[in-house]
Amino acid sequence: MKTDIEISQEADLRPITEIAEKIDLNSDDIELYGKYKAKIPLSVLKKFDTNPDGKLILVTSINPTPAGEGKSTVTVGLADAFNRLGTKAMAALREPSLGPVMGIKGGATGGGYAQVLPMEDINLHFTGDIHAITTANNAVAAFLDNSLQQGNPLNIDPRRITWKRVLDLNDRSLRHVNIGLGGVVNGIPREDGFDITVASEIMAVLCLATSYADLKARLSVIVVANTYDRKAVTIGDLGVAGAIAMLLKDALKPNLVQTIEGTPVLIHGGPFANIAHGCNSVLATKTALKLADVTITEAGFGADLGGEKFLDITTRQLPKNPDAVVIVATIRALKMHGGVGKKELTTENLPALEAGFANLKRHIENMQSYGLPVIVALNQFASDTVAEIEKLIALTKALNVPVSLTNVYEKGGAGAQDLAEKLADLLKEKSEFHYLYPLESSISEKIQDVVTKIYGGKSVTFTVKAKRQMKEIEANGWANLPVCMAKTQYSFSDNATLLAAPKDFEITVRELVPKIGAGFIVALTGDVMTMPGLPKQPAALKMDIDEDGKISGLF
Amino acid sequence: MKTDIEISQEADLRPITEIAEKIDLNSDDIELYGKYKAKIPLSVLKKFDTNPDGKLILVTSINPTPAGEGKSTVTVGLADAFNRLGTKAMAALREPSLGPVMGIKGGATGGGYAQVLPMEDINLHFTGDIHAITTANNAVAAFLDNSLQQGNPLNIDPRRITWKRVLDLNDRSLRHVNIGLGGVVNGIPREDGFDITVASEIMAVLCLATSYADLKARLSVIVVANTYDRKAVTIGDLGVAGAIAMLLKDALKPNLVQTIEGTPVLIHGGPFANIAHGCNSVLATKTALKLADVTITEAGFGADLGGEKFLDITTRQLPKNPDAVVIVATIRALKMHGGVGKKELTTENLPALEAGFANLKRHIENMQSYGLPVIVALNQFASDTVAEIEKLIALTKALNVPVSLTNVYEKGGAGAQDLAEKLADLLKEKSEFHYLYPLESSISEKIQDVVTKIYGGKSVTFTVKAKRQMKEIEANGWANLPVCMAKTQYSFSDNATLLAAPKDFEITVRELVPKIGAGFIVALTGDVMTMPGLPKQPAALKMDIDEDGKISGLF
Repeated sequence: MKTDIEISQEADLRPITEIAEKIDLNSDDIELYGKYKAKIPLSVLKKFDTNPDGKLILVTSINPTPAGEGKSTVTVGLADAFNRLGTKAMAALREPSLGPVMGIKGGATGGGYAQVLPMEDINLHFTGDIHAITTANNAVAAFLDNSLQQGNPLNIDPRRITWKRVLDLNDRSLRHVNIGLGGVVNGIPREDGFDITVASEIMAVLCLATSYADLKARLSVIVVANTYDRKAVTIGDLGVAGAIAMLLKDALKPNLVQTIEGTPVLIHGGPFANIAHGCNSVLATKTALKLADVTITEAGFGADLGGEKFLDITTRQLPKNPDAVVIVATIRALKMHGGVGKKELTTENLPALEAGFANLKRHIENMQSYGLPVIVALNQFASDTVAEIEKLIALTKALNVPVSLTNVYEKGGAGAQDLAEKLADLLKEKSEFHYLYPLESSISEKIQDVVTKIYGGKSVTFTVKAKRQMKEIEANGWANLPVCMAKTQYSFSDNATLLAAPKDFEITVRELVPKIGAGFIVALTGDVMTMPGLPKQPAALKMDIDEDGKISGLF
Repeated sequence: MKTDIEISQEADLRPITEIAEKIDLNSDDIELYGKYKAKIPLSVLKKFDTNPDGKLILVTSINPTPAGEGKSTVTVGLADAFNRLGTKAMAALREPSLGPVMGIKGGATGGGYAQVLPMEDINLHFTGDIHAITTANNAVAAFLDNSLQQGNPLNIDPRRITWKRVLDLNDRSLRHVNIGLGGVVNGIPREDGFDITVASEIMAVLCLATSYADLKARLSVIVVANTYDRKAVTIGDLGVAGAIAMLLKDALKPNLVQTIEGTPVLIHGGPFANIAHGCNSVLATKTALKLADVTITEAGFGADLGGEKFLDITTRQLPKNPDAVVIVATIRALKMHGGVGKKELTTENLPALEAGFANLKRHIENMQSYGLPVIVALNQFASDTVAEIEKLIALTKALNVPVSLTNVYEKGGAGAQDLAEKLADLLKEKSEFHYLYPLESSISEKIQDVVTKIYGGKSVTFTVKAKRQMKEIEANGWANLPVCMAKTQYSFSDNATLLAAPKDFEITVRELVPKIGAGFIVALTGDVMTMPGLPKQPAALKMDIDEDGKISGLF
């Protein structure tokens, strides 16, 4: 089979103006970025304000494994499938970060015949949103250090600065740095560090903001440091909330692109699903709900991380609750959860499949616990045997959950038509969505709810530091915010090696980080990587551009 | 009078497709970035290959002073004036860096009624070129540090890494940093520093490259470090020249915008005029030469820095030599050169004007020494008295040099019509351009030529370090490159306080920096600032965005 980039370069891209027409946007409703990308200004939401909101489907997955699940691919193929069936559908996806693209082969625009185009642009600089966030984040840092240098009128304690700088690269050497060296004119020496841009609170803020006014208000309350007497210092205190919002003027507008089959897709915002909430922007989803009859959105990592956060954080900012959940699983990945090594995945192994099914089962029950109808998308691989497929279907049906075999990588939308048809039936049911926890619960209760009801853990332990921070959060009046769990994506537990459905484990919350602009409290469990490193042979070594500007080696 | 941003927001912007039509570009020849910006792909140069090159005018100035000269404003107004006279003219300008925009009020898109639009976009993220350069520069750094971390196969000496990281911000705290701290998994500890992005060699390379192949070749030979046995390590050695060129795919395409009067302008590339050559991209100028009858381009700082470098560095990459030089001067600035303080500039002072004229005179003679016809643009300010204007005109005419009174800030193109008419006459003369020095001269001879023939200095002293580096440069076979002087912009000398036309001074070259990708050897004199700081009250404090996304406080 052809590579993703070959398939994408052979695709018949339509001018984005034509794609826009499919969702009733004329040329004045969009801002072109080349022929195949466009931004949708916020005025469009107002223009279509009286449109009813369409149906909203969340695509999530089992805990990811090195075998790959194909969640984005299924999301893209599913949107294509709905359109094939005559239902006006759009997908809303996250923007890829450049760092991992340059480091480890693998894009974020689907694959095979279920791709979003133009994939080179989307995976590189796209429309500049992430660069704007990098700039905004680092401008805050520069203003903060300048305030220290210019007499420190805000009484900032340089040891209590929590705001880090960012770059959209994998660069481990910048995780821990000392800055302000070189004498009086070169700043105040202090410890600092760089995260990858998608870990910036500004990315989370951009993805949760609903207007320019809301953006500015959220930026204004972001905590960047503490004073010597332990009072929070915000971007508003630095006096630059307006300037930082200004830098995000265009970044706040959702980006319109297309699938290989010409389905309109919004790709906008890409916060980490560990340190942040891992969902595309609220504005993109709101816009799609107004313009399409069915919107399909995807959350990062598995249903325990991105899925839970979509339901408990993002949904609170949306005009409507989700109507159904698709859980993507593969036989390969379930066999890994059942204890099979990566090299033995092509060998039929029914007992391992059954053992690994425990992971899928818990995710199904979790999503059902929100009152949502669930369907399993079994994303087919060539190595899956008939017996394995039949086994998985039987196991799922035994739970009274519908299941559909998808093959969108090879077949595009045709490979998800059955899934779309079954979903259309599910969408006729009235969902009775409710959040996992009320905002009024204490921070500790909210975390316990997630750990015991979603992760299946026994209990939560808080470090002394986390307990102290919990008191500070309450004293500051922030206790009514939802929690954003930072946990390994590979396991329900905080131990990446405990696959399938571990039980009786404890989760230790070692630190709480208030993200007041984003509007959640991050609970750190274990080590969370906020600046990835490069591998020994980075993917970039194979990337190239020829004399005509044609790119190769990018996936 | 209205502010620049008010004038710009009231202007009647035409769709950029209309502006493109004026220079015979159809909608397939441009890539839109919103309605008012477009990129011109490199294929357009091929398409118009058989067009003859138009005339090329360089706009430069006296040594800048805090009084302001208005070089960009005159450049923009002059292009408008030519079009008013029925001559198809374009301007080619540098892109502004965001750092200074956020720090110190003042844009780079002209002023008053001689502005390039949309000024907010151009002064903020524009089409993302500078962000792409930031990313490319820092990707090189990440790959370099990753190579160190992964067993150091290239034998790089961490103490001899010359490649710095960059951000497009004013951020003094990042000038000197220690990175790679925090233990084994977090890199190799070493000293590092951040420059502002426009000081990156990649910016210089982008501005001098003539094709994707040339871009990649230049990137490939950029020296980033030395080995323990003092051999140069390049981006090519890191194996990522193709990937880095790929990151610059769109950034290499010139950007088309318009003046308030609808004149097409290319704004592309903005290297520092101290550490680098200070001119817009060769591709922008080449493109304009094919599309217009007259191209007006501007070089950074005064004629001793940006002017000299345009003629001795940039011109060597152009298909044709310049045809005439405009030197912009103001009575205010010349009075400062004559010893008047900033607060006394509104008082008539003929003796000071005459004393300060020495600065203009030397610049005129310098530009004439290249065999080029010269005209002085006297950029009028309200405080100029009739006697002062008459005096300056008389002094200039005594040198047999034409002079024109301009007032483009208030009048737009109408304020430079006389200048355009006089230039049209000058352009009928055949210029006999020749470079200041042949490339075959030694590095030391080339520097001496610049210092004695352009700066008017007595001699050059090289530090021991510079002498050693000169030998290394010769040994590496780089001695045939032009030199790029890094000197204060405020004086002909390396002492910023020596105004007008100092004599008998010595210049000390303290260090030579080979920029092999750009294709020049930087000669550092005095301290060169490659990362500016923020002032006590940054301009950003006044910037804001309202609910409808309208920007205020940006100039």
